[in-house]
Amino acid sequence: MRILLVNPNMTTAMTDTMAGIARTVAGARAEIIPITATRGFPYIASRAEAQIAGAIALEMIAEYRDTVDAVIIAAFGDPSLAGARELFDMPVVGMAEAAMHSAAMLGERFSIVTFSPLMTAWYMNCIAESGLGAKCTGVRTPPPRPVLVDSVLKDTRAELIALARSAATEDRADVIILGGAPLAGLAAEIANEVPAIVIDPIAAATAQAIALASITMPSSFAARAAKPASKSSVGLSRHLEATIAADRA
Amino acid sequence: MRILLVNPNMTTAMTDTMAGIARTVAGARAEIIPITATRGFPYIASRAEAQIAGAIALEMIAEYRDTVDAVIIAAFGDPSLAGARELFDMPVVGMAEAAMHSAAMLGERFSIVTFSPLMTAWYMNCIAESGLGAKCTGVRTPPPRPVLVDSVLKDTRAELIALARSAATEDRADVIILGGAPLAGLAAEIANEVPAIVIDPIAAATAQAIALASITMPSSFAARAAKPASKSSVGLSRHLEATIAADRA
Amino acid sequence: MRILLVNPNMTTAMTDTMAGIARTVAGARAEIIPITATRGFPYIASRAEAQIAGAIALEMIAEYRDTVDAVIIAAFGDPSLAGARELFDMPVVGMAEAAMHSAAMLGERFSIVTFSPLMTAWYMNCIAESGLGAKCTGVRTPPPRPVLVDSVLKDTRAELIALARSAATEDRADVIILGGAPLAGLAAEIANEVPAIVIDPIAAATAQAIALASITMPSSFAARAAKPASKSSVGLSRHLEATIAADRA
Amino acid sequence: MRILLVNPNMTTAMTDTMAGIARTVAGARAEIIPITATRGFPYIASRAEAQIAGAIALEMIAEYRDTVDAVIIAAFGDPSLAGARELFDMPVVGMAEAAMHSAAMLGERFSIVTFSPLMTAWYMNCIAESGLGAKCTGVRTPPPRPVLVDSVLKDTRAELIALARSAATEDRADVIILGGAPLAGLAAEIANEVPAIVIDPIAAATAQAIALASITMPSSFAARAAKPASKSSVGLSRHLEATIAADRA
Amino acid sequence: MRILLVNPNMTTAMTDTMAGIARTVAGARAEIIPITATRGFPYIASRAEAQIAGAIALEMIAEYRDTVDAVIIAAFGDPSLAGARELFDMPVVGMAEAAMHSAAMLGERFSIVTFSPLMTAWYMNCIAESGLGAKCTGVRTPPPRPVLVDSVLKDTRAELIALARSAATEDRADVIILGGAPLAGLAAEIANEVPAIVIDPIAAATAQAIALASITMPSSFAARAAKPASKSSVGLSRHLEATIAADRA
Amino acid sequence: MRILLVNPNMTTAMTDTMAGIARTVAGARAEIIPITATRGFPYIASRAEAQIAGAIALEMIAEYRDTVDAVIIAAFGDPSLAGARELFDMPVVGMAEAAMHSAAMLGERFSIVTFSPLMTAWYMNCIAESGLGAKCTGVRTPPPRPVLVDSVLKDTRAELIALARSAATEDRADVIILGGAPLAGLAAEIANEVPAIVIDPIAAATAQAIALASITMPSSFAARAAKPASKSSVGLSRHLEATIAADRA
Repeated sequence: MRILLVNPNMTTAMTDTMAGIARTVAGARAEIIPITATRGFPYIASRAEAQIAGAIALEMIAEYRDTVDAVIIAAFGDPSLAGARELFDMPVVGMAEAAMHSAAMLGERFSIVTFSPLMTAWYMNCIAESGLGAKCTGVRTPPPRPVLVDSVLKDTRAELIALARSAATEDRADVIILGGAPLAGLAAEIANEVPAIVIDPIAAATAQAIALASITMPSSFAARAAKPASKSSVGLSRHLEATIAADRA
Repeated sequence: MRILLVNPNMTTAMTDTMAGIARTVAGARAEIIPITATRGFPYIASRAEAQIAGAIALEMIAEYRDTVDAVIIAAFGDPSLAGARELFDMPVVGMAEAAMHSAAMLGERFSIVTFSPLMTAWYMNCIAESGLGAKCTGVRTPPPRPVLVDSVLKDTRAELIALARSAATEDRADVIILGGAPLAGLAAEIANEVPAIVIDPIAAATAQAIALASITMPSSFAARAAKPASKSSVGLSRHLEATIAADRA
Repeated sequence: MRILLVNPNMTTAMTDTMAGIARTVAGARAEIIPITATRGFPYIASRAEAQIAGAIALEMIAEYRDTVDAVIIAAFGDPSLAGARELFDMPVVGMAEAAMHSAAMLGERFSIVTFSPLMTAWYMNCIAESGLGAKCTGVRTPPPRPVLVDSVLKDTRAELIALARSAATEDRADVIILGGAPLAGLAAEIANEVPAIVIDPIAAATAQAIALASITMPSSFAARAAKPASKSSVGLSRHLEATIAADRA
Repeated sequence: MRILLVNPNMTTAMTDTMAGIARTVAGARAEIIPITATRGFPYIASRAEAQIAGAIALEMIAEYRDTVDAVIIAAFGDPSLAGARELFDMPVVGMAEAAMHSAAMLGERFSIVTFSPLMTAWYMNCIAESGLGAKCTGVRTPPPRPVLVDSVLKDTRAELIALARSAATEDRADVIILGGAPLAGLAAEIANEVPAIVIDPIAAATAQAIALASITMPSSFAARAAKPASKSSVGLSRHLEATIAADRA
Repeated sequence: MRILLVNPNMTTAMTDTMAGIARTVAGARAEIIPITATRGFPYIASRAEAQIAGAIALEMIAEYRDTVDAVIIAAFGDPSLAGARELFDMPVVGMAEAAMHSAAMLGERFSIVTFSPLMTAWYMNCIAESGLGAKCTGVRTPPPRPVLVDSVLKDTRAELIALARSAATEDRADVIILGGAPLAGLAAEIANEVPAIVIDPIAAATAQAIALASITMPSSFAARAAKPASKSSVGLSRHLEATIAADRA
Repeated sequence: MRILLVNPNMTTAMTDTMAGIARTVAGARAEIIPITATRGFPYIASRAEAQIAGAIALEMIAEYRDTVDAVIIAAFGDPSLAGARELFDMPVVGMAEAAMHSAAMLGERFSIVTFSPLMTAWYMNCIAESGLGAKCTGVRTPPPRPVLVDSVLKDTRAELIALARSAATEDRADVIILGGAPLAGLAAEIANEVPAIVIDPIAAATAQAIALASITMPSSFAARAAKPASKSSVGLSRHLEATIAADRA
C-alpha cells in the first residue's frame, strides 16, 4: 500500500518530521510518499490561507493520484478535505479529523492542546463540524505570545505538558490530542509525563489511512453515485483538470 | 457606496443578470461593480470546485479591495466566505448566507427550492453551518435529470413554481429561497404565483451588503484583534500576496 | 419608505435616542415614526414583563399598520416578534435578532456586552432561539449591582469598554453587540476604543428593516399560506381586533 | 392542596371538560379551581393569540395567587409559562410541557397527534424548546380542512385513532400525546384501541402540578435569587401590578 | 398503589434513608417497597459499575413485577432505565431523570450540585441524554478528595450549601438538584439556606412515579407495539427469564 | 498483536463468520481470538438484552484481558462499550461505533441499511450518541416481518441491495453501513452491485482496533487520571472482580 502524505505547508522540515512518524506507524504495511507544497505559505494558520493552500493541495494530490492508495492531508484543520474526497477514488484522511475520531473511539472525553490561542477558534470549528463537540472538553493553549513555528516545540514543551496534565486531571479528559503540525512527534516524547492517552495527529492519520484502505475497494469509490458530475475547467494544473473532467458515468 | 459583485463562476451572462438585479435593489444607494472569474469553472456545483473557485475569488477581491466598500460573493454555497472576511476590511456577504439570514428575519420557517437534487446535500450543509436548520423546512427540487445551466430557468420554471407552492402550503414555509445563481431573477417573476414571501438570493445579498456597510466603519474592520497575523506567501497574485502580508498591528 | 419604531418600554427619552440613531442610519431612505408605550413598564427586564409589553406592542403596531412599510420592535429580547410577524403584512424586525444576524454576517464569532448580569439568562435564551449559539462567544457584563436605567450608560461606560476589549482580545470575537436599549448610541462613541466591529442594535434593526423591505413585496406577505386563520376576539384594542379578524383567504 | 386551572381560552365548555379530567386525576389529593378567560379568543391557535392571551392569563393567576398552591395553564402551547414562573411563588405547569416531560419519562419515543396541521409548526416549536426533540417521532395530523373547535372531537375521532395507531406501529412511538385542549378526554376513551401509552395533556398537567407541589416549599420559591427585580407598572390589573411590584429582597 | 424502590447499590443504610423520604412524599397515596442489591457494589460510581448493577436491577424488578404498580431505580445515573422500561408494563422512574424533568418544569435553569468531581462527567452525560442541557447551568462540586460514602453528607455539608448558593446567585439557577444517593435527605435540611428551589432526587422520583401511574393504565403498557419481541435466554434469574420470554403479541 | 473478538450473542455460527472476516482484514498484522457468550441471548435486539449481555461481555473480556492487545465488542449497538473502556487498559472498539466513525471519514454522508425496522430506533440512538447524526441520511430497512436470524441474510439479500442502491442514489449517501451482526460478510458480496462504498461493521471494527492499538501505548491507558477509583464487589466473576478492584493509583 502506498500513502501520499501531502503537506500543504511549504516547510520541508515539517514534512520530514511527519513522514518519519508516519513511517514508524506504517511499518511494513505501507510506503509513505511525502510531498511538500511549493506555493502557498510556510505554515497555514487561518481560513483564508486554508482556502488557498487547499486548492494547491488538490493539485498536488491530482499529480499522484494514479500511484497511491490513500492520501493524508497533513495540516491540522484539514484544508480541502471535503473536495478531495469528492475527486479522488481512494480514502483521504485529515489530521484533525483522524485524531478526533480516533480519540472518540479511545475514551469518553478528549481535549485538544496546542501551542497558541490563535488556533483555538479554528480548532473549535473543526470540532463542531466533526459532530464530536459533546465528547470534547475544549482546547487548552498557552497565553498569547509571538510564535516561531521552527522553535515552538522547544519553546512551549513544558507548558504543553502542564496543559495536557490539567486537561487530564481537571477536565478529566481520557485522551489528549496535540494539535498542529509543528507539534508532530511530541506525543511519544511526553506520553509518560501525562496521565492520559496522548495522540499525535499524524500518527492517527496514518493509522486511519491504512485502516480505511484495508476495508474498502477502489472500485467502490469510482462507482459512487453521489460524486459530482464531470466538469470542464480553465487554468487548473493539467492533472487536476483531468481529474475533474473525468467521466464518472 | 461601491459594492463589488464577484461571480466566481466564469459565465458572464449569469454575472449580467445578477448585476441587473443588484442594481435594481441598490438604486441610488450603491454602485455595483460586477466581475467574472476568468479561471475555474462555468458553474460551481461541488465542494472541490468551491475550494478552487474560492481561492480564485480571493484574488479577484484583492485586486479591487481599495476601491469598494463591500463585497458580494455571487455563488450560492458562498465559496471562500470565511477567508474573505478575515482578509478584507469591509463587509463580505454570501448569497446563501444572506438569503437565509434574511429569510429567518422575515418568517418562522423558510424553504429552499432549487433546480436539481445534485445541489441538495451541499445546500443542507450550508443550512446546518448557518445554525438556521431549526427554521428551515428543507430543500425541494425536481427529480434528477441532466441540467443545462443556460436553459435551466426556462426548463424548470413550472416545476419550481409547483415546488414553491408545496413548500408554502404543505410545509407551511413563510419564506421561499430560490437557491442557485442560475435562478437569479425568477423570484420577482413568480412572486404572485406563490403564497409565500419569495427571496432572490442576489437581491438579499445586495440588500445585506448595503445594510452591513451602513452600520459599520472601515476602521473597525482594520482594528479587529481577531484577524490572523500577516503572512508571507509564494505564488499568489500580487494583490492577494500584498493583502495577506499587510501588517495588522 | 416609512418605518415604525415601536418602543414597548414607557421611557420616552429612550425612544428619542433610538429614533435619532435610526434616522442617522436611514438617511433619506426612510422616514422613522417613533412611538412609545403608554402602558406597561419603564424598562422591560423579564419574561413576564415581555409577555405583557409584547401584547401592548401588538396594539401599538395595529394602530399604525396601514401607514408604514416596516416595523422595528425596539427592545432587546424582541417581545412579541413572532406574533407580530404573523399578523402584519410587512417586515417586522427585533433589535436582538437584527443585531445577531448582522453580527453573524460580519464575522466568525460575536459577543454580547451588556450593563447587568440580570439580563444574561434572557439574552442567552435569545441567542439559543436564533440558532446562532455556535457563533457567539457569550455574554459579558459588569458584576451585579443596582441599575439605574437613566444613568446606566454613564455609570458603566468604562467597564463596558473594558468588557468589549476582553471579548475581542480574549474571546477573539470579531463583532461586539452592545445589548439593551439603554446602551443605544454607545457603539459609535466607543468604536475606536475597541479592537472589533461594534454593533448598535437599533442601528442594525433599522438597516435590516430597510433591507428586508427593499427585497419583498407587501402582496407576498398578504398572500402567505402559513398565516393563521382569522379570529374573533373580545377586549382587544379596535385596531388589533380588526387585524386579527381580517379575512386572509 | 388547591390547584388553579387557568383556561386562557374563552370557551367555558372546554374548561368544564378539563376540570372534570383534572378532578379525576386529583381525587382527594387536590381541589381544582377552574377559571376561564373573559377576554381574548375562543381558542388560541397562533403565536399572536398566545402573546395576548398569555398576558391575560397572568392577570387571571395574579387574582388567585394567594389562595392556591399550584397553577395549570390549560392551553397546549403553554402561553405565558416562562413569565408566570418568574412571578408566582408556586409550581406553574403547562399542558404541552407537562405532557412531553411525562412522555419522556414513560418511554423511549413519543409522538404528538392533533386535529389540524395548522398546529404542527407551533407544536414543533414547543418540542424544540423543551429540548425533547430527539425523543419525539413527530406530529401527526389529519389533512387540512376547516376546524370547528366544538365538534372537532367527534369529527376527527376515527382519524385520530388511525393516526395514533400509525405513530405506534410505524414510528414505533411508545407514548402518544393527544395535543390541543379540544381533545381533552379523548385519551381515556381510545386507550384500548391504540397499541401505545396514550397521554391526555390536562391529566398530565394535573399530575405534574401535584407532584411538583409535593416536593417543594413555597418559601423556596419566594427566596429565589434568580427572580427579576420588583417593578412599577401602568395599566395592569390591580393584582398583577401588585405582584410585579412586590419586594423580592 | 405500591411502588418498588430498587437500590442497585448494596448499602442498606442508603436504602433506609431513601425509603423514609419516599414515604414522606407518598403519604397515604402509595406504599413504598424498598429492596437493596445483594450483589454488585457498595456504591455505583462508574459506567462499568452501572452496566453490571443495572443488569442486577433488572433481576430485582422482575422478582417483584407482579406485585407493584411503579418502579423507582434509586441510583443517580439511572442504571438500566431504558431496558427496564422496555420490559416492565408499568412506569419506571430514574432518580436523575425525575429530578431533571421536575427541575425543568419548576424554573428556567437548574444546576446539579454533588459531592465529588468524580461524578461530573457521568452527570454531564445524563444531562445531555435527557435533552435538557440548554436548561442546565452545569455541575458544581467540591475539589477532588477521597470520598467516604458513609460520611460524605456530614463532611461536605457546608461546602454543598456554599456551592448551591453560588449556583443560585452566580449562575442564576432557579432550581438546584442535590445529585447522588448519598445526599438523600439533605435538600429538606438546607432549603432555607439556599436562595433557590432545592430538589431531592429521591423525592422527585417518588412524586413522578405516583404522577405517571396516576395518568396511565397497565393495559396500555402491555399493549405497546414498540416493545421488543419475546426472547429465550440462558443463565438469567428465573423471573427475569420469564419476563423476557413473555409473549407480547 | 492479539485482538479479542467478543460476541455477546450466544450464536457460535455468527462468531465464526465474524472471525473469518476479521482475520481477512487483519492478515498478518494481528491474531484474532474469537469468544462467544455462553449465557444471555441468541441475538441481542433490545436495550434490556444489551444491559444484560453487556455485563456478561465485561466478564468475558476480564478473563482474557492479560493476553490480548485490543478488544472488539462484536454486536451492533455496542453493549457495555463505555464500561469496558473504563476498565480495560487497551483499545476497546464497538462494531456500530467503528463503522460510523469510519464512514464519517470516507464520505460526506452515510446511511445504515439493516434487515428489520425493529432495529431502527436503537440504531438511531447509536447515531445520535456518536454525534454523527448530521452526516447520516437515516436507517433504511425492509418492511416489518418475522425475522429468523439464521436465514435473514439469504431471505433479505435482494431487498438489502435495493435499499442500499436507494440510499446511494436517492439519499446521496457516499457510504452504506450494513448494520447488524447477522449481515456480516454481505458487504464484500454486494459491493459491486451498489454505487457507494459499502462497509462491513466487523471489518471496520477490526481495522479500527488495529489502528488504535498502533498509535497508543498500554502504559498510557493504565495511567489515565480519568479512570474510576478501584472498588470492591460481590458476586462478579473472579476476573471481573479483580479488574474492578485493581489499584489504579
